[in-house]
Amino acid sequence: MATDPATTESSDPSTADTLESYRASIDNIDAAIIHLLAERFKITRKVGEYKRVHQLPPADPAREEAQIARLRALAREADLDPEFGEAVIRFIISEVIRHHEKARS
Amino acid sequence: MATDPATTESSDPSTADTLESYRASIDNIDAAIIHLLAERFKITRKVGEYKRVHQLPPADPAREEAQIARLRALAREADLDPEFGEAVIRFIISEVIRHHEKARS
Repeated sequence: MATDPATTESSDPSTADTLESYRASIDNIDAAIIHLLAERFKITRKVGEYKRVHQLPPADPAREEAQIARLRALAREADLDPEFGEAVIRFIISEVIRHHEKARS
Repeated sequence: MATDPATTESSDPSTADTLESYRASIDNIDAAIIHLLAERFKITRKVGEYKRVHQLPPADPAREEAQIARLRALAREADLDPEFGEAVIRFIISEVIRHHEKARS
């Protein structure tokens, strides 16, 4: 790689400090996301159990589209790329459905 | 589908109420996740800019593995399947790297 040693992360304390500070914030946010996912999963586990008992299908495309549309609007307001927000939420939803299907079989 | 009409979501008010209540909580949690992603993305945008200016590679596998190990431990403490937590965080990280690479090219 064509890096100048004087500008690499390890040899420039001010850059390293800034990156460390950014990373500490990212770590805090990720910890919050993990805890929200834990809480979300507790609820979807109950939803899955309800759907199983009441013989409802694990996926609900109409509900899912409404969720996505609302979250895209929220992402836009928060200056987050809606494609990025949608991709993450769709990934979470699909992982949850996969878990429900596994629990069901 | 072999559903008994008496047990479907629409014809059983108590079930519908319970699902509505679960879904309202899921919607609140998803809104919180979107806002955390917006804040996280603001920071990774700065990290990406720093890395670009200092000619550092977009991905940092050692940092990533340390992040994942810590978040798996947090997931376990929060009674969240660590595989699920890891999958979501890896997806977020890979989307962010994809964005950095796009911004760089």
